[in-house]
Amino acid sequence: MTKGRLEAFSDGVIAIIITIMVLELKIPEHQATPEALFELWPVGLSYVLSFVFVGIYWNNHHHLFHAVHHISGGVLWANLHLLFWLSLVPFVIRWMDEAGYTAWPTAAYGVVLGMAAVSYTLLQWAIVACNGRSSRLAAALGNDLKGKASLAMYGAAIPLAFVSPWIAVVLYIAVAVIWFVPDRRIEAILKQ
Amino acid sequence: MTKGRLEAFSDGVIAIIITIMVLELKIPEHQATPEALFELWPVGLSYVLSFVFVGIYWNNHHHLFHAVHHISGGVLWANLHLLFWLSLVPFVIRWMDEAGYTAWPTAAYGVVLGMAAVSYTLLQWAIVACNGRSSRLAAALGNDLKGKASLAMYGAAIPLAFVSPWIAVVLYIAVAVIWFVPDRRIEAILKQ
Amino acid sequence: MTKGRLEAFSDGVIAIIITIMVLELKIPEHQATPEALFELWPVGLSYVLSFVFVGIYWNNHHHLFHAVHHISGGVLWANLHLLFWLSLVPFVIRWMDEAGYTAWPTAAYGVVLGMAAVSYTLLQWAIVACNGRSSRLAAALGNDLKGKASLAMYGAAIPLAFVSPWIAVVLYIAVAVIWFVPDRRIEAILKQ
Amino acid sequence: MTKGRLEAFSDGVIAIIITIMVLELKIPEHQATPEALFELWPVGLSYVLSFVFVGIYWNNHHHLFHAVHHISGGVLWANLHLLFWLSLVPFVIRWMDEAGYTAWPTAAYGVVLGMAAVSYTLLQWAIVACNGRSSRLAAALGNDLKGKASLAMYGAAIPLAFVSPWIAVVLYIAVAVIWFVPDRRIEAILKQ
Repeated sequence: MTKGRLEAFSDGVIAIIITIMVLELKIPEHQATPEALFELWPVGLSYVLSFVFVGIYWNNHHHLFHAVHHISGGVLWANLHLLFWLSLVPFVIRWMDEAGYTAWPTAAYGVVLGMAAVSYTLLQWAIVACNGRSSRLAAALGNDLKGKASLAMYGAAIPLAFVSPWIAVVLYIAVAVIWFVPDRRIEAILKQ
Repeated sequence: MTKGRLEAFSDGVIAIIITIMVLELKIPEHQATPEALFELWPVGLSYVLSFVFVGIYWNNHHHLFHAVHHISGGVLWANLHLLFWLSLVPFVIRWMDEAGYTAWPTAAYGVVLGMAAVSYTLLQWAIVACNGRSSRLAAALGNDLKGKASLAMYGAAIPLAFVSPWIAVVLYIAVAVIWFVPDRRIEAILKQ
Repeated sequence: MTKGRLEAFSDGVIAIIITIMVLELKIPEHQATPEALFELWPVGLSYVLSFVFVGIYWNNHHHLFHAVHHISGGVLWANLHLLFWLSLVPFVIRWMDEAGYTAWPTAAYGVVLGMAAVSYTLLQWAIVACNGRSSRLAAALGNDLKGKASLAMYGAAIPLAFVSPWIAVVLYIAVAVIWFVPDRRIEAILKQ
Repeated sequence: MTKGRLEAFSDGVIAIIITIMVLELKIPEHQATPEALFELWPVGLSYVLSFVFVGIYWNNHHHLFHAVHHISGGVLWANLHLLFWLSLVPFVIRWMDEAGYTAWPTAAYGVVLGMAAVSYTLLQWAIVACNGRSSRLAAALGNDLKGKASLAMYGAAIPLAFVSPWIAVVLYIAVAVIWFVPDRRIEAILKQ
């Protein structure tokens, strides 16, 4: 089984997710004033943040499959599982757009991102299972510090959203920052 | 005629179908409570189920065309016919989201999935007609037990939706379960 | 310049057009009755017809570019021009869904399809100009009877929509029927 | 790192952007009259103009990456940055559709197009940084007169939209006209 169509299909789904989010944005009132525009910034922030998150997943997906030789039925489903959680990003964006940075939508945003992180980890495991635990890829993924740190931060952000949504938002931004750089571990292997 | 563009176009259409379903989901009420969230589970269930169904079709399509060498005008149209029925999945999801698990939308869901199953069978026939009845693919598809069982289950579910929609839903889940594993027959040929 | 990305981009746009039309469909009333469902058939007809039309363009585009070796900036723009008119199909579908088979939307549907036919002809000219008037493709396209007949039928249908929209609809269906079979002229060259 | 998936992903995102704009168009009133249709022309103009702008970016992106050999993490992010600004085009179209050619949405349209132009320049820089300042591509991009002129015209159009939106619209059309022809500089290199 070749990885070409899996990559093409994932590219398609991620491209659509990253693009249809814009359909969820409410337009400003007709008689725009600087004050009215200022009120749009929370929605703008969640749009930018989500664009960055989906972009990070695409970048990491790109890097990950670059180093993959074999795929299996299990990898196909692990990949669909990741796409499932990413597909919910436009949904939580729309909720935040309607309800603002209140506790429930902010926590739901963390659940969706956290489950995407979990499913990305499962995808890495499925790929390692299919390509061999002793493969260079398995060695390169190593102890996956960034992955573990992200999961811990989502785990903290979800309950903290009920204390103050802004604590959760700061944690989400922190996760985005630590992932902004593509996965150097895999670039390092590819250069060898 | 090569299969590359047929695969790319199908990937695109299926990627869009699986992703735009999320546009049909209603967001929870602003003042979310655990009870309000609990009321969302039927819609959540139909979203997950539809994601799995479309994912199954993509996986099987992927496997099927992997083993295909020649395509014809007939295969192009049989493929478009399959995509047509899949394109109606977001429509029936939206209907179920509005009307709940009532008889008509639940039956319509079965009609759409059943016609997708019929059109998948027609696609297999068109491919066998184009590649020769004695090809390895024709042998591998064999008596297509899973396909026949699915059609029988949809045929039963559609009238039963008018007795109780939940019987139909259980049958749809049962079909999803039997198809969850990609088509081993084709994987077996490819390994030979 | 290679044709790979032009094909991929066109596949993407056509895949989206054919799929987002479903977002324009109104769902039936909650308390569905056979009578209420029966009232949906005009919308269903326009959805099926449009799916077939966009499918025909994809098939013919697929066949046309199969036989193309060189593309130019002019071909890129002629192709975008075709995609522009196709992109308006979901818009006229939505209008017919709202207003029914009345004169203006039915005529607008003909204008959109007719302009798509004109732009397809221009695309063929741009390709011939780029590949040489003496190329096999130029010979194969020949006198383009089907193309001329379609343009004549659209030209008749648009004013006749103001006499009776159904005359126009019958003409649109007739055009779809004559194009249903992919362009044999090009298949014939490819076999040589 | 190869450029194949970057091109495929960008094609997907641009294809979606250029297509979903049509979802933002309001349909005419049911009892269409020539006068009512005439009132649609501003929306039609902004749709055509945006289609042309996105088409120009796709053409230039196509030409640019044709001449690229190496990409890096920086190029991936510069490309996502460009796609981010292009993804806002459907949003500003919707705003203009609602509010007409009034000052704020017309200025916002200029901001989005201007930022897309800035991000395209940054993308060129990232590519040159990755492929070497002495590469043929670097030489071909040269002093980028058209890019600088566009930025100056957007910079003028945004404040002038508050004097009269039509001055801004004329400037946007002027930018489209100067970019309508694909980037000859790169075609010239490729021919060498």
